[in-house]
Amino acid sequence: MPASLIVKPFEWPLRVYIEDTDAGGIVYYVNYLKYIERARTEFMRSLGFDKGDVFSKELMFVVHSLSSAYKKPARLDDVLVATAQFVKAGKTYMVMVQEVYKIVTAVNNDGESESRELLCRAEVKLACVKQQTIKPHRIPDGILTAINRKIS
Amino acid sequence: MPASLIVKPFEWPLRVYIEDTDAGGIVYYVNYLKYIERARTEFMRSLGFDKGDVFSKELMFVVHSLSSAYKKPARLDDVLVATAQFVKAGKTYMVMVQEVYKIVTAVNNDGESESRELLCRAEVKLACVKQQTIKPHRIPDGILTAINRKIS
Amino acid sequence: MPASLIVKPFEWPLRVYIEDTDAGGIVYYVNYLKYIERARTEFMRSLGFDKGDVFSKELMFVVHSLSSAYKKPARLDDVLVATAQFVKAGKTYMVMVQEVYKIVTAVNNDGESESRELLCRAEVKLACVKQQTIKPHRIPDGILTAINRKIS
Amino acid sequence: MPASLIVKPFEWPLRVYIEDTDAGGIVYYVNYLKYIERARTEFMRSLGFDKGDVFSKELMFVVHSLSSAYKKPARLDDVLVATAQFVKAGKTYMVMVQEVYKIVTAVNNDGESESRELLCRAEVKLACVKQQTIKPHRIPDGILTAINRKIS
Repeated sequence: MPASLIVKPFEWPLRVYIEDTDAGGIVYYVNYLKYIERARTEFMRSLGFDKGDVFSKELMFVVHSLSSAYKKPARLDDVLVATAQFVKAGKTYMVMVQEVYKIVTAVNNDGESESRELLCRAEVKLACVKQQTIKPHRIPDGILTAINRKIS
Repeated sequence: MPASLIVKPFEWPLRVYIEDTDAGGIVYYVNYLKYIERARTEFMRSLGFDKGDVFSKELMFVVHSLSSAYKKPARLDDVLVATAQFVKAGKTYMVMVQEVYKIVTAVNNDGESESRELLCRAEVKLACVKQQTIKPHRIPDGILTAINRKIS
Repeated sequence: MPASLIVKPFEWPLRVYIEDTDAGGIVYYVNYLKYIERARTEFMRSLGFDKGDVFSKELMFVVHSLSSAYKKPARLDDVLVATAQFVKAGKTYMVMVQEVYKIVTAVNNDGESESRELLCRAEVKLACVKQQTIKPHRIPDGILTAINRKIS
Repeated sequence: MPASLIVKPFEWPLRVYIEDTDAGGIVYYVNYLKYIERARTEFMRSLGFDKGDVFSKELMFVVHSLSSAYKKPARLDDVLVATAQFVKAGKTYMVMVQEVYKIVTAVNNDGESESRELLCRAEVKLACVKQQTIKPHRIPDGILTAINRKIS
């Protein structure tokens, strides 16, 4: 595929607060799932779909399944970025790949340079369900079209 | 008042898990409010009122205001007990005093002895509200009667 | 394998509190990972290994990777049980399968009967690391022996 | 005091995510304390003091006591702002007043207008302590000077 057609992942900046850490001195691993959900939510919002909108249609997206791998820890005050990218979609579900990076700023002779270290990588399958029954339901057309447009 | 009429506070045992701690190596102070809410919930349940029951009447209790003071920290694996005691009630609200203690077990010549250290003390005012509007609503009679019976 | 040799999973009872739920009216999916970590911690404690003990050796167990699948939602006040079972162990890691069930109590002519509904199933790989560096380290012998004894 | 000498509170923008809500459909009241801690942390950072810096001196700030009052609820997707303002400081402690507002955007003939609704108000007393012992310790001079400069 020509490089110009590759869809870049959505990115959301984050900061590690004391609430995110645990007695090991690092970010509690469960909290990465909160980080990537914030990125997913902002990604959907950037496409025009607030969570509240989906709720008002008596639908919601729930996590069907996920896998995640932790490479390096984050610590208090670290600056992070969480990504969100659709990799697949069906009538009632979508799959995202999401990563969390630590932003590392180095100062050298040429000034500051910034690099990224991968901390966590996750694949998340989300199902569209009716809010009352938690039974699968078709993703509303507008949302599905927007998702498919973002799958490279 | 004769000692026999004093209502003993309700008690709920707890354990400190890694999820409760922060990078300071101690229980994140916000989480004491979760601990005491669990004790409140179990206290109400012991009186016959599950949170779900109140919800099903389209009511709920929300925290109107609170004050809390932190005396000593808790650490990973500590055994705690959280208390709940009504101190006042009105048509639409109730006030509880709640404490969190650490259970300290000492071994000596006579065997094991157990003492308690006060970690946190809070006063919490709860308002009964309609779930939809979050506007004040009379506490259902059965619940108010049960509360008043527990105020010494 | 004769049934007598099958190691039954460790079980830990839980209750759904308001802190565990989200605006969808169900347990926030991230919180199942807290539930199963409590079960893991209590399982290790039942084998004689408090988290604090491992910490005091300047080691800790961190989640290396996990996969989880969500079958049905839990709601406020539900009674749950979380399980923990070792399925594999190496010099520096162990793998657990963990499930969360909802306890459903039915009343019929013969009295009460209890059944279980699977809500969530996870496989978690934990790595033993040095607390300072978060680099892999051998699991202490006593712990590894206890783990291997529990793998059926 | 002339208006020009009044120190305006520090402000930090926030968004309500699903992780912040509970089954009542509103922000779980405990989470406002996380919101205001983020604002406190960013306020201190804006003055040049990362939490990690304080930690590296083997000190930390812990919450000594707090009072909070909840006026109106926040809901999913709401845009909020949390404030932080010093009102008092001593050798080993400081007191902050902190508020959380909901940003309400109205569209009318003249375009958009923005107003604020007070959701929560808290007063928080923070103590400087040694990280190992959690015993009170003098606030480092640089920090105390910066705090006093911000008390109007």
